Amino acid sequence: MPYVNIKVTDEGVTAEQKRQLIEGVTELLERVLNKPRYATSVVIDEVATDNWGVGGESVTALRNKERNSGQR
Amino acid sequence: MPYVNIKVTDEGVTAEQKRQLIEGVTELLERVLNKPRYATSVVIDEVATDNWGVGGESVTALRNKERNSGQR
Amino acid sequence: MPYVNIKVTDEGVTAEQKRQLIEGVTELLERVLNKPRYATSVVIDEVATDNWGVGGESVTALRNKERNSGQR
Amino acid sequence: MPYVNIKVTDEGVTAEQKRQLIEGVTELLERVLNKPRYATSVVIDEVATDNWGVGGESVTALRNKERNSGQR
Amino acid sequence: MPYVNIKVTDEGVTAEQKRQLIEGVTELLERVLNKPRYATSVVIDEVATDNWGVGGESVTALRNKERNSGQR
Amino acid sequence: MPYVNIKVTDEGVTAEQKRQLIEGVTELLERVLNKPRYATSVVIDEVATDNWGVGGESVTALRNKERNSGQR
Repeated sequence: MPYVNIKVTDEGVTAEQKRQLIEGVTELLERVLNKPRYATSVVIDEVATDNWGVGGESVTALRNKERNSGQR
Repeated sequence: MPYVNIKVTDEGVTAEQKRQLIEGVTELLERVLNKPRYATSVVIDEVATDNWGVGGESVTALRNKERNSGQR
Repeated sequence: MPYVNIKVTDEGVTAEQKRQLIEGVTELLERVLNKPRYATSVVIDEVATDNWGVGGESVTALRNKERNSGQR
Repeated sequence: MPYVNIKVTDEGVTAEQKRQLIEGVTELLERVLNKPRYATSVVIDEVATDNWGVGGESVTALRNKERNSGQR
Repeated sequence: MPYVNIKVTDEGVTAEQKRQLIEGVTELLERVLNKPRYATSVVIDEVATDNWGVGGESVTALRNKERNSGQR
Repeated sequence: MPYVNIKVTDEGVTAEQKRQLIEGVTELLERVLNKPRYATSVVIDEVATDNWGVGGESVTALRNKERNSGQR
């Protein structure tokens, strides 16, 4: 029954990382809420950095600032 | 007013099938809740099989198992 | 696998109507996309009319206008 | 057509504030994307502070810390 | 804390328009609900016109009708 | 940045369990995608069992069947 939606920016999430996220969320719901594994659905949405804003700026702009300031 | 979001895996849903889903949901809300057709919005999200997990595994992995066992 | 979210205003949807919406969506996905019934999840969200806006006005305001003009 | 979902914590959002959010989003989509007012739907979800986590803590816990430290 | 999801059809929204939508929503939540700018997340989903239905028809079909009747 | 929405039925999830879900998801995103804790938002939606359907039936109906057959 549980349905979990994970939204992250599309900054290179690998198939293996997606597998770990799916397994991790399924295990967490089993451990905490005793939900049977077969019942848990997980959907991962990868959002373009132009399409995600934080603090009024797009993640694209934030990443550029980080690169320009050597943080990334 | 009704807003309906249909999430399915991106396994080849055709434009015609999308048309039938949109018509079917609109008709259902008209029939059951007497919602006028013009008011119903339907959005179909097609999710990559790597990005959808069931029972702790990605649909990609599940489909591979089905193919290997001849179920698909 | 399919996950369907139906958002409607909380204007007295009965348990029977919810049952019909759940059955109708499940049947539609089986008919159109050949999805097995057991795989389809449907979640119905009922939204307060103050919390739903159309054309810049809340549904509460729209309903009041309808009542005042005798449409409802 | 545009559908906008605003999720905030249920910390006393008034009907008037909801009205302003609905109007503000509708005006923004008209101004920026030339979407006709009648086409824009806005749904506001108010989430209990136990049910919203940031940085690994619930907003309930964060608010208690803010009160204890005199920030709120 | 606020999370705002804007769904529009993928009909050529530019990076600059996305920037204005992100800024506009962030400013609106700051003005109306006094939410600090850093706390507001905005995600813009662009939906294929085949995948969005209104009044039982896909936006693709509606746009074709508009073009054929000279409205667009 | 990550935004995670967990939908479960409203069958008595405690504040402590919500805390564990929030912490568990935040830790998972930090471990798998190296996302800083402060950036992760988690929202838990509790859905009435009349409003959640699986296999064409509401969870209310499914739970009644489980009780009648002694499974619950």
